Amino acid sequence: MGAKFCDQENPLLVSVRSGAAVSMPGMMDTVLNLGINDDVVIGLAKKTKNERMAWDSYRRFINMFGDVCMEVPHEDFEEELTRIKKKYERALDTDLTTEELKEVVFAYKKVYKKNVGKHFPTCGREQLGLAINAVIGSWNIPRAIAYRNINKMHGLKGTAVNVQAMVFGNMGQNSGTGVAFTRNPATGENKFFGEYLIDAQGEDVVAGIRTPDPISMLKKRMPKIYKELDAIRLKLEKHYKDMQDVEFTIQEGKLFMLQTRNGKRTGLAAVKMAVDMVKEKLISEEVGLSRIEGDHLNQLLFPILDPKAKSAAIAAKRVVAKGLPAGPGAANGKIVFNAEDAVAWVKKGNKVILVRKETSPEDVSGMWAAEAVLTSTGGMTSHAAVVARGWGKCCVVGCGALDINYKTKTISVSGKTIKEGDDVSIDGSTGEIIIGAVATSSSPVIAGIVEGNKKARQHPICKIFLEVMKWADNVRRINVRTNADSPKDSEVARKLGAEGIGLCRTEHMFFEGDRIWAIREMILANDVEGREKALAKLLPYQRKDFEGIFKAMDGLPVTVRLLDPPLHEFLPHEAKGQAEMAKRLKITPAKVKAKVEALHEMNPMLGHRGCRLSITYPEICKMQVTAIIEAACNMQKKKIKVLPEIMIPLIGTKAEFDILEEITRETADAIIKKKGVKVKYLVGTMMEIPRATLVADKVAEKAEFFSFGTNDLTQMTLGYSRDDIGNFLPDYMDKKIFIEDPFASIDQEGVGQLVKIGVMRGRKTRKKLKCGVCGEHGGDPASVKFFAGVGLDYVSCSPYRVPIARLAAAQAVLENKKY
Amino acid sequence: MGAKFCDQENPLLVSVRSGAAVSMPGMMDTVLNLGINDDVVIGLAKKTKNERMAWDSYRRFINMFGDVCMEVPHEDFEEELTRIKKKYERALDTDLTTEELKEVVFAYKKVYKKNVGKHFPTCGREQLGLAINAVIGSWNIPRAIAYRNINKMHGLKGTAVNVQAMVFGNMGQNSGTGVAFTRNPATGENKFFGEYLIDAQGEDVVAGIRTPDPISMLKKRMPKIYKELDAIRLKLEKHYKDMQDVEFTIQEGKLFMLQTRNGKRTGLAAVKMAVDMVKEKLISEEVGLSRIEGDHLNQLLFPILDPKAKSAAIAAKRVVAKGLPAGPGAANGKIVFNAEDAVAWVKKGNKVILVRKETSPEDVSGMWAAEAVLTSTGGMTSHAAVVARGWGKCCVVGCGALDINYKTKTISVSGKTIKEGDDVSIDGSTGEIIIGAVATSSSPVIAGIVEGNKKARQHPICKIFLEVMKWADNVRRINVRTNADSPKDSEVARKLGAEGIGLCRTEHMFFEGDRIWAIREMILANDVEGREKALAKLLPYQRKDFEGIFKAMDGLPVTVRLLDPPLHEFLPHEAKGQAEMAKRLKITPAKVKAKVEALHEMNPMLGHRGCRLSITYPEICKMQVTAIIEAACNMQKKKIKVLPEIMIPLIGTKAEFDILEEITRETADAIIKKKGVKVKYLVGTMMEIPRATLVADKVAEKAEFFSFGTNDLTQMTLGYSRDDIGNFLPDYMDKKIFIEDPFASIDQEGVGQLVKIGVMRGRKTRKKLKCGVCGEHGGDPASVKFFAGVGLDYVSCSPYRVPIARLAAAQAVLENKKY
Repeated sequence: MGAKFCDQENPLLVSVRSGAAVSMPGMMDTVLNLGINDDVVIGLAKKTKNERMAWDSYRRFINMFGDVCMEVPHEDFEEELTRIKKKYERALDTDLTTEELKEVVFAYKKVYKKNVGKHFPTCGREQLGLAINAVIGSWNIPRAIAYRNINKMHGLKGTAVNVQAMVFGNMGQNSGTGVAFTRNPATGENKFFGEYLIDAQGEDVVAGIRTPDPISMLKKRMPKIYKELDAIRLKLEKHYKDMQDVEFTIQEGKLFMLQTRNGKRTGLAAVKMAVDMVKEKLISEEVGLSRIEGDHLNQLLFPILDPKAKSAAIAAKRVVAKGLPAGPGAANGKIVFNAEDAVAWVKKGNKVILVRKETSPEDVSGMWAAEAVLTSTGGMTSHAAVVARGWGKCCVVGCGALDINYKTKTISVSGKTIKEGDDVSIDGSTGEIIIGAVATSSSPVIAGIVEGNKKARQHPICKIFLEVMKWADNVRRINVRTNADSPKDSEVARKLGAEGIGLCRTEHMFFEGDRIWAIREMILANDVEGREKALAKLLPYQRKDFEGIFKAMDGLPVTVRLLDPPLHEFLPHEAKGQAEMAKRLKITPAKVKAKVEALHEMNPMLGHRGCRLSITYPEICKMQVTAIIEAACNMQKKKIKVLPEIMIPLIGTKAEFDILEEITRETADAIIKKKGVKVKYLVGTMMEIPRATLVADKVAEKAEFFSFGTNDLTQMTLGYSRDDIGNFLPDYMDKKIFIEDPFASIDQEGVGQLVKIGVMRGRKTRKKLKCGVCGEHGGDPASVKFFAGVGLDYVSCSPYRVPIARLAAAQAVLENKKY
Repeated sequence: MGAKFCDQENPLLVSVRSGAAVSMPGMMDTVLNLGINDDVVIGLAKKTKNERMAWDSYRRFINMFGDVCMEVPHEDFEEELTRIKKKYERALDTDLTTEELKEVVFAYKKVYKKNVGKHFPTCGREQLGLAINAVIGSWNIPRAIAYRNINKMHGLKGTAVNVQAMVFGNMGQNSGTGVAFTRNPATGENKFFGEYLIDAQGEDVVAGIRTPDPISMLKKRMPKIYKELDAIRLKLEKHYKDMQDVEFTIQEGKLFMLQTRNGKRTGLAAVKMAVDMVKEKLISEEVGLSRIEGDHLNQLLFPILDPKAKSAAIAAKRVVAKGLPAGPGAANGKIVFNAEDAVAWVKKGNKVILVRKETSPEDVSGMWAAEAVLTSTGGMTSHAAVVARGWGKCCVVGCGALDINYKTKTISVSGKTIKEGDDVSIDGSTGEIIIGAVATSSSPVIAGIVEGNKKARQHPICKIFLEVMKWADNVRRINVRTNADSPKDSEVARKLGAEGIGLCRTEHMFFEGDRIWAIREMILANDVEGREKALAKLLPYQRKDFEGIFKAMDGLPVTVRLLDPPLHEFLPHEAKGQAEMAKRLKITPAKVKAKVEALHEMNPMLGHRGCRLSITYPEICKMQVTAIIEAACNMQKKKIKVLPEIMIPLIGTKAEFDILEEITRETADAIIKKKGVKVKYLVGTMMEIPRATLVADKVAEKAEFFSFGTNDLTQMTLGYSRDDIGNFLPDYMDKKIFIEDPFASIDQEGVGQLVKIGVMRGRKTRKKLKCGVCGEHGGDPASVKFFAGVGLDYVSCSPYRVPIARLAAAQAVLENKKY
């Protein structure tokens, strides 16, 4: 470009923009008419016979160059502009005359000098150098970094820089500029979508001063240009094989394409475009699959707040707070403040939202009854979040702005008070809390596939969802199971493609109805006989639950985990509940209180729970195995194919497993013999204690399967209590100690090593050892890919995450192919 | 032996006993006159002209054979004997006539038949077969197994069987039998020690019916035999090169040696004999070293309850309960029920014993003031146990029999009530709790070496202790450091041979005097300025502490751990304390309560503590580093050589370490530059999170040393909270899930793997990375040997464990030589 670039008679005006593959907020992506200066402006004015345009361009350039390249505060320019507009009583920028614009340019140069400490550069080469540096530097501004983190874009080295010759869309009525998408980015429809302005430069389209016209208008106004543009649109899609986001300028009747890049899209659009492009043979099924992100698919599954109703609520300032979006979808209902009330209100025909500071297993019945759960504390993996997500129930947690008062049954927030029974709406995808009932609707996918609505099944969205799932199932190599504790969950998961149950937690079954009294009686018993008597009361309930689950999973494996939580979780911790319990069990309240205190633990996570309970009280293990195997025999007799896998939780040593395996087999085999039914079952263990993974070779001598419980494995390997990370994890994410919440996406570097070690050592002893994962990570795409890579046989996740896991499992195969 | 063995005319009587290297309780170690039957007895009676002896032998044999070989209840025989004695009005067994003894034999045979279902065997060969089987089987009876576990005898395959021809000590006045030790097993004195009976069989010596005479009497009574025996004694010691425990029988003037084996001994005897035998050139220093166990050495260090006074207390039934012997030695004092009272009573000149249900860091000042600590809950690694052991303070924990009432300030136990101010004595080696003051005395070793008592220094026990330590230091390759938090502890440890401080915990320093108010002010502060202001108050205290420690450790390295416990440990948890705090800090009690609640954690072990605090509040790290380095500079100026090693606790990622390392170096280097003193310091980390060991290669890029914090590493690798294992660990030990308490002796199979991985990976990055251990395991001999084996540079333990660690470190070298 050399000397010519600075030639003021024939200036080569160029623009500079980031060459990053995607636009990031704050990254420099602005057209700068580099090479401009007083003389060039005068020349330009003469050449274009448009003096005003030339000076306006100059003004804009100084502003933008100063702002973007030299960090001059935009407000400083704005202040001068306002002053001069006021001086000449001009309402709009466009009202300013050429002379007035010259005054603005003069004022802007002073602003520049004041802030930068140097004169505004008049040499194009100098401008170019500064602009290129600014583009490169903008890669590391906080907003761009945050954007990359949020969008999980890691390992990129930086941005390229594009330098283009300038063209001008502001040269009269046969000039113009526009932005467009080659398909509709909201719906995915294969139709040219965009807008343009006549006699304007790029920034005018987005500045909002003039209202652009839809691209379809251009067809009438400039049919030749439109035809050319439409041909380019098709050519670009054919070349890039993806929807493009383009910018164009028309300079005096000639079309220039300024930029093209893959366009951003909604989940629906992403799925629809992938399916359409495969049909159009533009891309292969594999490429189609790789285009769809887990979150895209998610958006197809959950009920949503009706967009119009929500907009109205926003306008009416009814959005009062924002928490963490923990459970999917949206909901509305009357707020209640405890589980009992939730159940009672629902019985009376109300839709309710359960509001708690935090939830515990005692709240589960109320959580189940409620439309949604809202808490003021806890993170994305708190009790409320995990349980709600497991059910596909809307949930917002950690909404610290809410001041919840259990006594008065009110919430104070943003100066407003919400009372028990008031309607509230919750958006589980954004975390927004809205006063009043905002209408919701089921997604066509859920209506069609899970709820069995035949019309919804024919809905185009439902069809494309099924198409994508078919592709995924053709490609993936590992199985996808579900975490489900009830026949209902099991059915939902199966409809969504689960190939078995990877984790059936038995403790949730203990809270329903009278069962809790039997378990409490067991805990209070003083001897084996007393415990056995109480357990005998639980047996029929458990057996019936398992029968329902086996029936729902006919022909598919069902992994049942024996009792896991510490016993104190089943006891009431407040005086009122303890008094009720004392009355019911005919003992003194003091005895109940003493038991609660005796079971109190400093660190319950590392206490007397999991298999440790059955080592101390083998009768618990015996009762549960009896319930499982009796249920299996009963169902088998009804020609239902049962494949029970009994899972012993929290083992850390071979000895623990061996002791309980022996009890399990003795109990099970005796029942099978007695019932005279052929039932095959496996006995395996959960790998969740770091030590267990280190001695996996020994454990595998007797264990027939491993299921990695990566929630607890993460807690212990990192030394983080899920319930307590709120005090430091946000800081840790800010400081990049962790890029991702290790409870949401597996810590591959640390915890992942133990998973690898466990699989490797386990299979050294037992070559075909079945290995799976049943932590929350089973529904996280990045984690699923990792698990597929280390050779697990399956992942298991909550029912509504099953489709995403199927997709991620397929993508794991495709990504491995690349290398 | 064949036919001759069953020849009734010339019976070959033999005895059978276990050939196990040591005698185990319950293992068959009984002389059985095999081959005996009716005819043999008659023949024996004729031959010996002692019919009564023959039938008495027969009676005893049936009883013993039935009992030991065939599991016939001893009581059944006893019942018959009593019946017949009553019938003939005989007071003693020896009063029975030959005819009456024949009746007993007849009755015994019936007892045998009834229990065994077969006739008593009359064939010697059959008796021998059964007896040999019984010996072999007795290897696996519970008591023998328990004995092996307690004495850490693992990997043995079983017992041999000895069959010996019978000799008879009960053939008149020139016959006899005895047991003896070649040296005194209680004091170690090189003098023949034992006892004998004339006209008796082996069992009579121990049965307690007749009182045996001391072996010295035999010299007069049978000078020839004694001379022969003494010669054999010397010959045996020369052959076995160890003190022997022998059994002998004199049959009609002829000496027979029945058995010899290494004798059991007290700690004092073990050490004295080792030293003496080396002097006698019987064994080498190395063999001498290998003969001394850690517990032996321990017995030389701690004050003891005066044996006579204790016996009197036992006789008076003043021993009212028994807990876990957590802290060494013995003590007496007046009981008090809280830390404040302890301090106050001691100020008034009382000796007190602090009695708590459990202790917390708030009790530390009272624990320090008290002679001993007694708790009703908690295990061997509870707060009370760890702190007390660290100080070498007597402590009994988990004494569940005590019903402690804080309100009435009383203990109810065994139907008695002990009030505040009552004298109580505690034996920290047995766990016994005794009502009343039982006198104690310092051991000569402590008096001589630690307390500087010159006379005690010349005491033979002190001399042999120093001799053994000299041997150990000549042999061992790894260093022994100490865990010490004060100048006083540091001095004690140095006197006991510590070669530096491996762990100086800074948080204990926060509880003394006014300091707690500064830390509380910091916790309550709302911003960095507030925290810095409060921390500035702590700085002079910390600096002064470090100056004292550096001075005590002149020339030796001192590893200082930055603040580790969660902040709520520094706050009062009860209303009274909160009110006091509110008053002092001039805020509302509600604010204090709110802060306590905000800091409450479900699992504090896995919460906001360790380096996580300094990531959130870097000002804490800065203040502590300032205190350390300023102290170092000040001391260096006084010609004291300081080698500070700053240790960042609880890291799990490289990023945490790097962030804090940078803050540490910036702070430290600025001070060093300002003070103009040359101070070299290291920055390293504690390896206590499983993940840290897995990424040790990365951490070692910046970390200059690793110190394995095996307490927490054990908690997290096993998923055991030290505070909560009481509910299941005893069961786990019973069921052999763990042979040893993994908090007392390192779990080599599990946790040990992570230590190995950490060392290996760390040194892959930094070849000469200094590695040590600073958990409780640093004072456990088996653990010390393991750590030496995996290549650690040092172990660190509480001051009073330093000698044991030195010994174990030497033994590790010797044991490795063997292979």
